[in-house]
Amino acid sequence: MSERPLLTQLIDALRCLPGVGPKSAQRIAFHLLERDREGGVRLAHVMADAMTRIRRCNHCRTLTEQDLCALCANPNRDGQVLCVVEQPSEILAIEQATDFRGRYFVLGGRLSPLDGIGPRELGLDQLDERLEGRAVREIILAISPTVEGSATAHLIAESAARYGVNLTRIAHGVPLGGELESIDGGTLALAFKGRQQV
Amino acid sequence: MSERPLLTQLIDALRCLPGVGPKSAQRIAFHLLERDREGGVRLAHVMADAMTRIRRCNHCRTLTEQDLCALCANPNRDGQVLCVVEQPSEILAIEQATDFRGRYFVLGGRLSPLDGIGPRELGLDQLDERLEGRAVREIILAISPTVEGSATAHLIAESAARYGVNLTRIAHGVPLGGELESIDGGTLALAFKGRQQV
Repeated sequence: MSERPLLTQLIDALRCLPGVGPKSAQRIAFHLLERDREGGVRLAHVMADAMTRIRRCNHCRTLTEQDLCALCANPNRDGQVLCVVEQPSEILAIEQATDFRGRYFVLGGRLSPLDGIGPRELGLDQLDERLEGRAVREIILAISPTVEGSATAHLIAESAARYGVNLTRIAHGVPLGGELESIDGGTLALAFKGRQQV
Repeated sequence: MSERPLLTQLIDALRCLPGVGPKSAQRIAFHLLERDREGGVRLAHVMADAMTRIRRCNHCRTLTEQDLCALCANPNRDGQVLCVVEQPSEILAIEQATDFRGRYFVLGGRLSPLDGIGPRELGLDQLDERLEGRAVREIILAISPTVEGSATAHLIAESAARYGVNLTRIAHGVPLGGELESIDGGTLALAFKGRQQV
């Protein structure tokens, strides 16, 4: 294995990147070797560091190398409002687009008992503990309205009711600039159901 | 700098990859962290190794971590036929598509005196030495027929004439399946000039 030319090894290793096939892997390898070795060295070090040190935040389960992620450690965020998302990447999207100033809770997936993903795997026991502590006033569900997503939302709704926490979910509907004829039926149905007084 | 979250550092560092903007960098980072840490670790190590150890082959100037690249070290390749290319990546393309069994010489660019790229930078002195040794019977030019490429080819032609080496160049013309109406004029003109008896 280590006898193979290092260039071939690099091209092969680059194929772990999403959407990178043999041709793109070659292109990336030559680009780094011929034009940006410095960037390549920096990326290699940060990547090795990130792969070994990044784990889940103790509090919200997002990805971080600290015990508490930057958002959970930030005293200026309102811990009484908790936005529940499926993936850590969704936190970035919400932070970039909205002025939400509360905190987050990351499920890390959707209920899927057949795949061994139950309430425990989604950290719902951890979420329960937080609700039990009476520190949360509102939960905002930012979960996709699929079958599994709805089942997950249902479990969270039960907990919220048990501890008297207000539960909301983000609006689903036609995106800005979306053409009605190209929107899927489920979204369009939700948009009609969720129509608001003008 | 090192105070920034490691995830942010990883996303930033990924932007050195060609064609990767902020969104793709996020997507790659989350993919590696959530689905393929093992691949990420392997890639990080190979990349660090490649960036520091890969340099130019002493003989043909392609990229390798050895003194001599695998092709130059292979005793079964015919050293009497030398294919001159601009970039190391072109060797891979030729090896994958043709049954060429000779050796290569990599210029690493095209003559461009204004950018400080003269004959020396392209290794033409090194090529001359090889021709002087009378070890080469034929040079095949696989250089793009741009202005700079033609100037480079002209210099090589002078050397070849001086040492009595046969000089050929690969055919330029309409690619297989190429539609005449969508081919650029330069290529079409070359295709007519280079027409062959049927």
